[in-house]
Amino acid sequence: MSETLANIGEFGLIRRIKDLLNEVGVKAPRVTTGIGDDTAAFLPSPGYELLVTCDAIVEGRHFLPQHITAIDLGRRAMTLNISDIGAMGGSPLYALISLGLKAETLVGDVEALYRGFVAELNPFEAAIIGGNLTKSEGGLFIDITLIGQVEEGRAVKRSTARPGDAILVTGYPGRAAAGLQLLLRAGPGEDLRENPLVRAYNRPSHRAWEGRAIARTGCATAMIDTSDGFLGDLGHICEESRVGAELHKERLPIDADLRKAALTLDLDPYTLVLHDSDDYELIITCAPKDVGRIRDAVARAAKGVAVTEVGQITDRAGHITMFLPDGSSHSMRASGWDHFKGTVS
Amino acid sequence: MSETLANIGEFGLIRRIKDLLNEVGVKAPRVTTGIGDDTAAFLPSPGYELLVTCDAIVEGRHFLPQHITAIDLGRRAMTLNISDIGAMGGSPLYALISLGLKAETLVGDVEALYRGFVAELNPFEAAIIGGNLTKSEGGLFIDITLIGQVEEGRAVKRSTARPGDAILVTGYPGRAAAGLQLLLRAGPGEDLRENPLVRAYNRPSHRAWEGRAIARTGCATAMIDTSDGFLGDLGHICEESRVGAELHKERLPIDADLRKAALTLDLDPYTLVLHDSDDYELIITCAPKDVGRIRDAVARAAKGVAVTEVGQITDRAGHITMFLPDGSSHSMRASGWDHFKGTVS
Repeated sequence: MSETLANIGEFGLIRRIKDLLNEVGVKAPRVTTGIGDDTAAFLPSPGYELLVTCDAIVEGRHFLPQHITAIDLGRRAMTLNISDIGAMGGSPLYALISLGLKAETLVGDVEALYRGFVAELNPFEAAIIGGNLTKSEGGLFIDITLIGQVEEGRAVKRSTARPGDAILVTGYPGRAAAGLQLLLRAGPGEDLRENPLVRAYNRPSHRAWEGRAIARTGCATAMIDTSDGFLGDLGHICEESRVGAELHKERLPIDADLRKAALTLDLDPYTLVLHDSDDYELIITCAPKDVGRIRDAVARAAKGVAVTEVGQITDRAGHITMFLPDGSSHSMRASGWDHFKGTVS
Repeated sequence: MSETLANIGEFGLIRRIKDLLNEVGVKAPRVTTGIGDDTAAFLPSPGYELLVTCDAIVEGRHFLPQHITAIDLGRRAMTLNISDIGAMGGSPLYALISLGLKAETLVGDVEALYRGFVAELNPFEAAIIGGNLTKSEGGLFIDITLIGQVEEGRAVKRSTARPGDAILVTGYPGRAAAGLQLLLRAGPGEDLRENPLVRAYNRPSHRAWEGRAIARTGCATAMIDTSDGFLGDLGHICEESRVGAELHKERLPIDADLRKAALTLDLDPYTLVLHDSDDYELIITCAPKDVGRIRDAVARAAKGVAVTEVGQITDRAGHITMFLPDGSSHSMRASGWDHFKGTVS
């Protein structure tokens, strides 16, 4: 049961992965060449644009191996890519998995990673059609390329928000940030994996079903997922659309778990909501008259997902202003996680 | 001039890369969303299958940073992906670049990497449309996803070789293996970068133009690139096609550079030709009557590229037999580089 990659080798592992995918994966439509050739191949569907994204997660930087199981790690890596496809209003179709592994990695852990990938892909009838395995002395990395599709002309970009638009956000950003802080402050041997906020960090949800439903309304003027934190990603919309934003602090959604954790952690809950947090919620902009249609689309796509109107887009390019309940305001920097500066600045 | 990623940050680097691509890259056709959104998007061309491949190269494992410039590293990483598209008979269209970088990496080196990527993509009017940047403490990795296209039904697979087919190979496999051995045995400070075999290792060619021309003849029954070494990749054809192969040792192509280096290195030149070598040549199978058409197609696509007939496909599934000039024969193991076992076994 403690078989390592050094025992079975690259080609042995590829065979094991193919067997596992045949057993638990789905057959994606329109694939003409799957795993085991120089490339994968598929026939695109007429009338659709293809969407393509890649995201890597690296040991020690994006996950804490002692606090997450291999299957949850696989789910998480796939979820953040599905979230990007969803934030364009599309559906995932095909994934390619590039892994950097150590020779002493357990084969069972690699299989569990793939079970995690498949668990997230199967509901979309999406499949793994290729990839690459390599040895990496410097720690595990998982790099996923995900290909999706959206009806031609229906993709919702970051660059098309308009002054006067309402700003909406799904769910409760900040929950994953609180979960990570709880993990970082955990005592030795403390098992927090069932804590709801730690689960939000280790096993985040995507909003791809909701994103697709929103795109189909044709009402969203811009959409993005919150992978760089709420303010960071609102900042991306402002920068790409050359607009500004006004937020109302008392409208920011904070749920009971987060409020309680903020007390325990002695942190301002608004810091958790606004800054770096791996929640993969959606920020949507739309004309004020269309807010109800966006809410209805989300409600039809998924039960119980909150949609909160938190502010509006302005013509003051690059300026994000926060209004407090007493009518005062201050300007915010559109900051998010910067991998190289390593700070939320 | 010694600006690092820690100085300019992730978003600063993304802006620099966008500027560089605007300056030196081409505008690829049918792109509806480029770099800077949740995903890239494009409109596929009717009548084509899409091909997709990914390959990672990792510092210390796939390249020796002290012996290769950043621009050549970029060219090499892109070439091995273009080679995979070419080995299916397709043309590259769009690339996504996922980089794992250290905070102390020089911005100039990252820009040089991208100049290398673009130098290989521009001749195909192919463009970089997305990617991902992350910090990697454990050393640089470059993971490229390359999307290409081939006329519907024209992709040449590994799994369709037939008993009786001739086995052809382009160029001179083994040159890159010899170059690597020369580098590994170089004295301190010895600069071998202009040695033709070292150049073959650091700056390999792909055969994508030739592969496309071969696919268009409709005569190739199977095709693969030699990224796992000639025997390893012939073995992949045998395994996937459930056939065997007979090789004639005296027909294996060995050029003068390789013969000379083998003497210097005290190695059997046939070991260099047959086993692990990063040359990205093509192995092609076809009916014996079609050998001339394959040769003509290669000659039209590229001047001076040798095409050598080295043996034939048999119905003895999984068996590769080497015939010597004296009429004796021995059986060969279809081996190639195994990343986890780390040996050519």
